[in-house]
Amino acid sequence: MSENETKNPRLSIKAAFLDEITADIPALNYDRDDWDAEFAEMKKAGIEHAVMIRSGFGKFISYPSKVLMKKCGCFEPPEDLPAMFLELAEKHGLKFWFGTYFSGNDWLEESYDVNRESDLMNEVNDEFYERVGKHSSAFGGWYFSQEISTSVSHRVLDCYCKMGEHCQELTPGLPRLISPGFPAHKTKSPYQMSVKEFTEDWDGIFGKISKAVDIVAFQDGHCLLNELEDYLGSAAALAEKHDLKLWTNLESFDRDVEGAFPPIRWEKLYYKMKIAEKVGVNEAITFDFAHFFSPLNGNVAAGNLLKKYLKYKNR
Amino acid sequence: MSENETKNPRLSIKAAFLDEITADIPALNYDRDDWDAEFAEMKKAGIEHAVMIRSGFGKFISYPSKVLMKKCGCFEPPEDLPAMFLELAEKHGLKFWFGTYFSGNDWLEESYDVNRESDLMNEVNDEFYERVGKHSSAFGGWYFSQEISTSVSHRVLDCYCKMGEHCQELTPGLPRLISPGFPAHKTKSPYQMSVKEFTEDWDGIFGKISKAVDIVAFQDGHCLLNELEDYLGSAAALAEKHDLKLWTNLESFDRDVEGAFPPIRWEKLYYKMKIAEKVGVNEAITFDFAHFFSPLNGNVAAGNLLKKYLKYKNR
Amino acid sequence: MSENETKNPRLSIKAAFLDEITADIPALNYDRDDWDAEFAEMKKAGIEHAVMIRSGFGKFISYPSKVLMKKCGCFEPPEDLPAMFLELAEKHGLKFWFGTYFSGNDWLEESYDVNRESDLMNEVNDEFYERVGKHSSAFGGWYFSQEISTSVSHRVLDCYCKMGEHCQELTPGLPRLISPGFPAHKTKSPYQMSVKEFTEDWDGIFGKISKAVDIVAFQDGHCLLNELEDYLGSAAALAEKHDLKLWTNLESFDRDVEGAFPPIRWEKLYYKMKIAEKVGVNEAITFDFAHFFSPLNGNVAAGNLLKKYLKYKNR
Repeated sequence: MSENETKNPRLSIKAAFLDEITADIPALNYDRDDWDAEFAEMKKAGIEHAVMIRSGFGKFISYPSKVLMKKCGCFEPPEDLPAMFLELAEKHGLKFWFGTYFSGNDWLEESYDVNRESDLMNEVNDEFYERVGKHSSAFGGWYFSQEISTSVSHRVLDCYCKMGEHCQELTPGLPRLISPGFPAHKTKSPYQMSVKEFTEDWDGIFGKISKAVDIVAFQDGHCLLNELEDYLGSAAALAEKHDLKLWTNLESFDRDVEGAFPPIRWEKLYYKMKIAEKVGVNEAITFDFAHFFSPLNGNVAAGNLLKKYLKYKNR
Repeated sequence: MSENETKNPRLSIKAAFLDEITADIPALNYDRDDWDAEFAEMKKAGIEHAVMIRSGFGKFISYPSKVLMKKCGCFEPPEDLPAMFLELAEKHGLKFWFGTYFSGNDWLEESYDVNRESDLMNEVNDEFYERVGKHSSAFGGWYFSQEISTSVSHRVLDCYCKMGEHCQELTPGLPRLISPGFPAHKTKSPYQMSVKEFTEDWDGIFGKISKAVDIVAFQDGHCLLNELEDYLGSAAALAEKHDLKLWTNLESFDRDVEGAFPPIRWEKLYYKMKIAEKVGVNEAITFDFAHFFSPLNGNVAAGNLLKKYLKYKNR
Repeated sequence: MSENETKNPRLSIKAAFLDEITADIPALNYDRDDWDAEFAEMKKAGIEHAVMIRSGFGKFISYPSKVLMKKCGCFEPPEDLPAMFLELAEKHGLKFWFGTYFSGNDWLEESYDVNRESDLMNEVNDEFYERVGKHSSAFGGWYFSQEISTSVSHRVLDCYCKMGEHCQELTPGLPRLISPGFPAHKTKSPYQMSVKEFTEDWDGIFGKISKAVDIVAFQDGHCLLNELEDYLGSAAALAEKHDLKLWTNLESFDRDVEGAFPPIRWEKLYYKMKIAEKVGVNEAITFDFAHFFSPLNGNVAAGNLLKKYLKYKNR
């Protein structure tokens, strides 16, 4: 992993998740002014795409969705995040990507109803599009929020296909993104696979979904650092074979600190960037900017991470 | 939970716990100057009552109590928090409430000696009152610090009765507060109850303690949001029946983030306020201000929560 | 533990660990400028020795060590911390101590090869010394980074002996430090001992290593506060018997807050200082300054802890 091993183009963080609505990361309780400043920081850091990680999770939703309040008894929220994010994206020259609703239902259960779930997510997608998406030049893509790591989650693959087709009809040409995990040591899933098994499994998966999604960004934190080159390299080859675009989800939080998600130690981010460059991946999305990279959140480790990243990128 | 469902008066946070001495929340290591600024912030936010959550926990105590150092071998602390809090309360026009000592003994065990525990707590109450309480116009109430959720904790009910009577004699008219939890999903207690069971159980409890306490403030974070209306509504009806005052303990920390207690996501606080308003509860105490609401502690999510709360309250 | 029990000299924090490379404490992602400011703060606080807790842990290392990259496949890091720390120590008038490499291998296993581990650590020590250590007047000591608590870790004792001899030859007179834990309630080790057992065990240990190490600083956070006097008092007597210098490792993080390591509550630090003074220990190292004492890291509890410590020390 020394400097001269890298002959490929530099990795650049082009996209960042907006962590709404989530469960395991503490809320920042940002107001419009705070998000405005945050979008300005993202822009300054070279980020072009702001991807809302999901539009709702269970009863909690990111805007007063008539569909979700009526069909799922969701709580009526005091804010309208997609509308606000779209406006800020427009103001700062970013693209906003809409993340699909997550019901919380377990897709490993036979009771998981692919048609019902897909239809619901598509209805929410439609609602978002009609309300605000189609009125904004900043609307830039769809993010399918289910995070899978193997074909054991085959019901999700069916959802991807149904949503992918629907979104393509709704907004021809607008990219569709997923962000799976590697089925490796640090995954919380019981399903772990060797790189060889992973390659076979995802060959099949990509075959199935290659018309339904455009970009795949594997989370880079589920495997050990010395496994990343093999997993990511295999993913890169598979993506090329199936004519998919591969980003890396360059996670900016540390998975190794028990009981917390702090900004990642710079060295680890650096190693992950070098590995991505080595296997020819040069575009990244990060989870996420506001908590782990931004100088605005009061955590000095986050702002410091950004400083080090920018120094490295502009070296 | 939409705007027009609410016909009742707005909920207002009238009281806040002072988190001393605690175990599970990180210390802020505030000095007198810091607390001075903190009391000013509380006053500005409309808070009238500062309630010390307990005067001691095991060997750790909040002032050099001769009673506790002699009888329990408690450590002699370097500070005298009740005296300082009383002075600051006086300065800023708040009332200070004294929280009873918590021995740490398990009241579910038969070995828990109600008389010994009650006598000890009352002796500490007396000591506080003689040293500083009776000399200050800011002394405003007693908080009985044992947190129960069902009548399984019947030994605590006996303590409440003994302390309630004692405090009433010592300071006639001064209010006595408890803050139980709902026996619901998120409680750490093994004893969970449906709303129906809760209602029966607390009808009995209120019958037993209605002369010993004046105000009851259930912690609103032990049940799911969509259960809160039923639990809190039932509590409100019971309080009215037994002529008790009902506050809600509007918890400002998030119970859903594993391994940490961050400031709560604004939306959740908002929903809990709307529910309290809906069932006719319009006064709240919060746990706590300094960690989860204050702009002074370095956690941006806390100051942001206060901004959003004030904006909502003054809308 | 009242004021007049203390007739011994005041405890003073003379040394602080530099928490690199670690696992369980979130990284601060400091750059050279940040560390420069940090060293200035340490100096102001009366700290004379900056002790790097280890030079590497598994694949992660603190400088581009040819030895470790070649022999252990360690990652090539983007920074050279020992070189930077030495320069800053020189600039600010502190001494820098080098912490030995930690392979991560389990020394309780029979497969742990004392010779291989010791030789590797000594080779890294040599490499550090040749590269930068011998060129700097600020190089002040060696820290043997394995943390043990009983003689069950006898393989580590053998390593201490081998490293102690080696370092003594390399840098005659330069002190060698270890920081074990008490085998008490809060240790994560399965081996717990009464004070009596501890005394016997460490009498044997000190007998074995007294020529290989110069200073022993037991971590003061593994026992309950009311046990510390006995454990530390026994350690003080043993150190005197074996002609070792005893510091206390005055831990500045709180072990009682589940799922996190926040700055310790001031009262606890105060009690631990009083106890150390009572048994005649008047020099301390702390783990660590940057996270738990420094006003620079954005955690108000840390800067407040320093203010309270300095006020107490200078009373």
